[in-house]
Amino acid sequence: MTPTDSPVATSISPRERVRVFDTTLRDGEQAPGFSMTRTQKLRIAHALAELGVDVIEAGFPQASDGDFASVQAIAQEVRGASICALARCQRGDIETAARALQPAARGRIHVFIATSPLHREHKLGMSRDQVIAAAVAGVRRAAELCADVEFSAEDAMRTEPEYLADVFAAVIEAGATTLNVPDTVGYITPAEMYERIGFLRRSVKGIERAVLSVHCHDDLGMAVANSLAAVAAGARQVECTLTGIGERAGNAALEEVVMALKTRAELFGVDTNLRTSRLYPTARLLAQLTGHTIPRNKAVVGDNAFAHESGIHQHGMLKHRGTYEIMRPEDVGFARSQLVLGKHSGRHALRERLAALGHAPDEAALDQIFTRFKSLADKKREVFDSDLEALALGRDAETLGPWRIVHLHAASHLGGSASASVRLQREDGLQASEAAIGDGPVDATLRAIGRAVGHDFELVEFQIRALSEGGDAQGQATLGVRHAGRELRGRGVSTDIVEAAALAALEIVNRIERSNPATAALAAANHA
Amino acid sequence: MTPTDSPVATSISPRERVRVFDTTLRDGEQAPGFSMTRTQKLRIAHALAELGVDVIEAGFPQASDGDFASVQAIAQEVRGASICALARCQRGDIETAARALQPAARGRIHVFIATSPLHREHKLGMSRDQVIAAAVAGVRRAAELCADVEFSAEDAMRTEPEYLADVFAAVIEAGATTLNVPDTVGYITPAEMYERIGFLRRSVKGIERAVLSVHCHDDLGMAVANSLAAVAAGARQVECTLTGIGERAGNAALEEVVMALKTRAELFGVDTNLRTSRLYPTARLLAQLTGHTIPRNKAVVGDNAFAHESGIHQHGMLKHRGTYEIMRPEDVGFARSQLVLGKHSGRHALRERLAALGHAPDEAALDQIFTRFKSLADKKREVFDSDLEALALGRDAETLGPWRIVHLHAASHLGGSASASVRLQREDGLQASEAAIGDGPVDATLRAIGRAVGHDFELVEFQIRALSEGGDAQGQATLGVRHAGRELRGRGVSTDIVEAAALAALEIVNRIERSNPATAALAAANHA
Repeated sequence: MTPTDSPVATSISPRERVRVFDTTLRDGEQAPGFSMTRTQKLRIAHALAELGVDVIEAGFPQASDGDFASVQAIAQEVRGASICALARCQRGDIETAARALQPAARGRIHVFIATSPLHREHKLGMSRDQVIAAAVAGVRRAAELCADVEFSAEDAMRTEPEYLADVFAAVIEAGATTLNVPDTVGYITPAEMYERIGFLRRSVKGIERAVLSVHCHDDLGMAVANSLAAVAAGARQVECTLTGIGERAGNAALEEVVMALKTRAELFGVDTNLRTSRLYPTARLLAQLTGHTIPRNKAVVGDNAFAHESGIHQHGMLKHRGTYEIMRPEDVGFARSQLVLGKHSGRHALRERLAALGHAPDEAALDQIFTRFKSLADKKREVFDSDLEALALGRDAETLGPWRIVHLHAASHLGGSASASVRLQREDGLQASEAAIGDGPVDATLRAIGRAVGHDFELVEFQIRALSEGGDAQGQATLGVRHAGRELRGRGVSTDIVEAAALAALEIVNRIERSNPATAALAAANHA
Repeated sequence: MTPTDSPVATSISPRERVRVFDTTLRDGEQAPGFSMTRTQKLRIAHALAELGVDVIEAGFPQASDGDFASVQAIAQEVRGASICALARCQRGDIETAARALQPAARGRIHVFIATSPLHREHKLGMSRDQVIAAAVAGVRRAAELCADVEFSAEDAMRTEPEYLADVFAAVIEAGATTLNVPDTVGYITPAEMYERIGFLRRSVKGIERAVLSVHCHDDLGMAVANSLAAVAAGARQVECTLTGIGERAGNAALEEVVMALKTRAELFGVDTNLRTSRLYPTARLLAQLTGHTIPRNKAVVGDNAFAHESGIHQHGMLKHRGTYEIMRPEDVGFARSQLVLGKHSGRHALRERLAALGHAPDEAALDQIFTRFKSLADKKREVFDSDLEALALGRDAETLGPWRIVHLHAASHLGGSASASVRLQREDGLQASEAAIGDGPVDATLRAIGRAVGHDFELVEFQIRALSEGGDAQGQATLGVRHAGRELRGRGVSTDIVEAAALAALEIVNRIERSNPATAALAAANHA
C-alpha cells in the first residue's frame, strides 16, 4: 500500500459513526469457564448500556432455558442499547429468539449459517444453493417478527468471495439490515480483511441498504487490527467483547478497538458512541463477576497499561507525558499514570514519590535513601509506598507501626465457621485483643483485626498471587478497602496465606493511623 | 491494497528466515511486577535457547549490579542463541555491556537513542545532528568491542521518516548490522508499519548490509499485526516476549507472531528456527516464575486456546477439526483439543466424554444423563470429569468416594508453622487420621491428607481463583499433582480457602483410588 492509495485518504468521510456491538454475554459467556448467572448477566448488560454500546448481544435463547430467561430479563430491564438474540436459520430458534426479545424497547434478531466449503460439507452437509435457501428463509422469518435483522455468514473469511457476495445480496433482499463478516477461526490478516471488505462493498447488490459488520477472533493475535482494517475499508459495525473474552483465544477486545479509533481519530475519521471513561470500571466488573483477573499487561485496562518503572521512561514521563503515553489514563477511567518504583527506577522518580508521601529529603539524604532503595529493589519484585516511608524514616517497613501483630491464631473446620484471634500492640504500649468468626480463616482474621483497632472498613478487593513456584511458594495477598471515603490498598507476603492477608490488613490499619495527626505526633515522640 | 500489489506476491522470496529476538528478560522483566532473580532469569534463558530463539536480550547491565550479574551468568552458561545486552549510546553503558557479555560464545551489543522530535526536545534536549553524532559514536565504540551490533532508534515510528533514514545510514556506516524500528508507544497500525518498512528499504543508504528489525508495543492491541506487517514488508528480525509481557501493555507476543508466520506460511513465505512444540511449556515456565497466570483466552498458550464448549462448535469439531481449528494443539505443545462440557454443550460431546471415562450408556440412559447434565451445567460454571462420572453412576460428585472427609482442622500461627489434622473415612468403613505441619494451612492440610491415605504425590500446580465477588466470595482451588508418572488435577470450591484445597486434594486421592481395580471392585460391591 503506498501513501496515495491509503484507505483513509480515499474512502471515509470524516466523523461517520461506527456501531459497537458487544457480544460479551453471548460469544464471551460461551467460552469455557466464563458462564454467568442471570443476575450477573443483568449487571453486565446494565453496565454496557451505561458504557454506551449500540447493541448488546444478550444470548442464544434456544441453547438453554437459562439463556432464554437471561435474554428476556435483559430485554425487560435494560434500556439505551438494542438487545440482540442469536438464532440458527431455523424457525424454532428464530421464534424462540423473538419471544425472548418481546419486552425489549429495541430488539434485534441475529441469524447465522455457515457458508465456507469446509463447514458446508463437513458440518452442515448442504450445497451452496441449500445454504442460500436456508439463509433467505431464516432472514425472512426473522424480518416478520422483528424490524432489525442481522445476518452472519459463519466462517465468512474462508468462504469463496463471489459466493459470499451472492449470499449477502440474497439476504438483503429478504430483509437483513446488518451483514456480519465473521473471521470465525481467527485466521485472517489486516491486509486481507481490508481487501475483502472493499470487495464486498463493490460487489454485493443492494449493499447500500445494509450496514457491514465484522466479528474477529484472536487465534493469531490479530483480532483488533483486523477489526480496525475493516473499519478503514468501510465496515460500520464492530463486534467485540470486554477484555476480549470469547471462544478459544477470544474476540476483539472492545476497549482496544474503541481506544484505537479514538487515539488515531485523524487516521480513521470515525466516532463511536462510547463513554470511554467507563471502560476501566466496566472491564473490572466483568473480571469480578467471572473470577478471571485482568492480566497486568492488558492494553487499556490492565494494571500496567499506564505504569512506568524503568528509570529512562520515568525520567521522560516527568518531563513530558507524551514521551511514553498516547492515551490519557483518565480517558479510560484510570485515576492517573503510575510511576512504579522498582530496581529499574531512578532518582527522579524516587524524589517525586517521596514528595507525594510528604517527605522532602535534601540531596545528601536522598543519596542515602536511593542507595538503600536500589539494594531493597534488587531483592523485592516491587517496592511499595510503605517501603519508601520506611526508607525515608530510616526504619524497616515491618516496624513502621504504630500497630504490630503480637499474636495470631486462625483455624478452619470442615463445614463450620472459621475463627481467628489476634493481639496487636501499639507503639505506646497499648494492647488490643479480639476474635471473630468468618467465611474462612482469611475473612475471620480480617474481621478480628478490624475489631481490635476499632476501624470499620469495607473490603472491595482481595487477591492472592504466588510470587514463586512450588509447594512452599511465597504468596502475596493484596487487600483493597474503603474507609472514610478513601480506597486504601495493603499487601502482605508470606508462605502462609492467612498471615499474608493479616500483614496486608495491618499495612492498611497503620496507614489509617499514621494519617491521623494525634497518632503521628505520638509516633514521632516515641521515636525522637 | 489490491490483490496485484499485495506485499507477498512482489517482495518476498519464499522460505527466507526471520530471526526471533526475545526480550522477555529485558523489556518484559522491566515491567512493574515482573522482576526476576538471577536464578529465574537463567532458567528462562535456558528455556529460550531450547525453544530455538536466535537472540536472547538478557538485560541492561548498566541499570543495576543485579542486571549486570544476570547478563554475565547467561553469557557464561547459555549456548545456542546470541546473548544480547542493552546500552544507551554512552561509553560507560557500552563498556559495561561488553564486560557482561565477555563470556558469551556469541554476544551482541544493542545500543539505542531516541530519535523522535518529542523525545529529542523533551527528554534528551538534543538537536537532530547531536542525536546522529551520539548514535554514530555509540555504534562505533560498540563495534570496537563486539562484532555484532544492533542499533535502535527509540520512538522510531514517531520520527520524521527522512531523518530516520539518515540516522540509519550513518549507523550502518559506523558498523551496525541490525537496525531496529521500535513502535515505542504502541501507536502504529499495520498499514502504516508496512509502508514505513518499505520506505526504509528503499531509502536507507547501505540497507543491504544490515537486517531490518521491528519492536512493537501493544497499547492499542496491534503489536502482533504490526510485527507481521513489517515482515510482509521485508523486516527480517522480530523483537518479542513470551506471552507479550513488557512495558505498559507489553510487547508483541512471541508465540502469536511465530504461529501466525507458520499457520499462514503460504502468505508470509518465511521460516523461523523455533521448535514450536516448546511454546506451551516455555510460556508456562515464565508464568510460574513470575506468578502471573496466563489468561484463559490467551492466543496459542491459554487454557482455552484449543477448548470448545458450545454445542455447535463441538459438533463441528467431532466431524472435522478444521471447522474450528487452524492450528494443531500438539504443534505448540498442548496435549490435544479439549471439548469442555458446560451449559452450551450438546449430546455429541457428552457421549464422547463419557466414553473416554469408560461409560457407554444406551440411548435411553444417555437421555437421562443429558437432562441432568444440562440442569447441573446451568448451575455450575464448568462441569468436570468427576461430575460426569457421578452423573453416569447416578450419584453426587461429592459422594463418589471412596474417601470422604469426616474432620478437618487447620490452624495458622504468626511466624510459626501451620498445622492441620484430618480424619478420612472410606466406603468400607475404614478410617484414617493424620496430622502434619506445613508452610501455611493449605500446605499442612495437603500433607495430612497425603499421609492419611498413604499416597505420595508431588505438587506441581496450586491456583486459587475467586468465583464470585465480595468478602464472602467463593474460591476455587485447583491442584495439580504428579503421581506414578501421571499428572492429575483436582478442584474444590468453598468460601474457606483451606477447605477448597482439601476438597481438591480429596478429588485427586479418590481418582487414584478408583483407578485401582481392587478399590473399584470394593466400591461397586458396596453400592450394588
